[in-house]
Amino acid sequence: MANIYDSAYDLEKAIRNSDEFKNLQQAYEAVMADPNAKQMFDNFRNTQMELQEKQMQGQEISEEEVEQARKVVELVQQHEDISNLMEEEQRLNVVINDVSRIITKPLEELYGNPEDDSNE
Amino acid sequence: MANIYDSAYDLEKAIRNSDEFKNLQQAYEAVMADPNAKQMFDNFRNTQMELQEKQMQGQEISEEEVEQARKVVELVQQHEDISNLMEEEQRLNVVINDVSRIITKPLEELYGNPEDDSNE
Ligand SMILES: [Ca+2]
Ligand SMILES: [Ca+2]
Repeated sequence: MANIYDSAYDLEKAIRNSDEFKNLQQAYEAVMADPNAKQMFDNFRNTQMELQEKQMQGQEISEEEVEQARKVVELVQQHEDISNLMEEEQRLNVVINDVSRIITKPLEELYGNPEDDSNE
Repeated sequence: MANIYDSAYDLEKAIRNSDEFKNLQQAYEAVMADPNAKQMFDNFRNTQMELQEKQMQGQEISEEEVEQARKVVELVQQHEDISNLMEEEQRLNVVINDVSRIITKPLEELYGNPEDDSNE
């Protein structure tokens, strides 16, 4: 039986060598190689993170901010390299979420055992 | 080169068969088999989750609540089976955090490349 760390490093290698990761890498490098695209993408990311932070801290998000964020999204979606990067991120995200579900299954089964919830 | 899903299932098996997981399983079952311990543990968990939720939503946590939580922690720490369960959880958590760091390394390297941050 392989140990956890060996298996984790194997998985890391599999991710690194996957088409999903390589495509993301290429898409990311294409955006980073174009200063205009890079700036648009950074701007998009910063706007996203600021709104997420506010949301997490329970701060109100103004109509203006929502409108501003909407415009930034619209702008980056029209940029072929950036929208391609976002597509590739989405694809790898699906895989990473699957992986996360697979490897947390033992814990989920342990804590989610319906028998143990019978007298709650 | 193994694909991502095969590697993820191998890792899941390695986790399931690890001493860390088996010890946690035993510790959890010992607590669940004792109605008094189970109730104390459930109470502890619920208190923890309520405080976490409040914190995440930016709600204020009263001195009374902090004091109440402190008492609940003190109580469960004195219960041998529950404190043992918490130790085993802590041990598996360390491993799971390591795993998470290992498998997100490719993404971290991609997005954290210092060269790409030179004009920020
Ligand atoms: Ca594409
Ligand atoms: Ca112990």
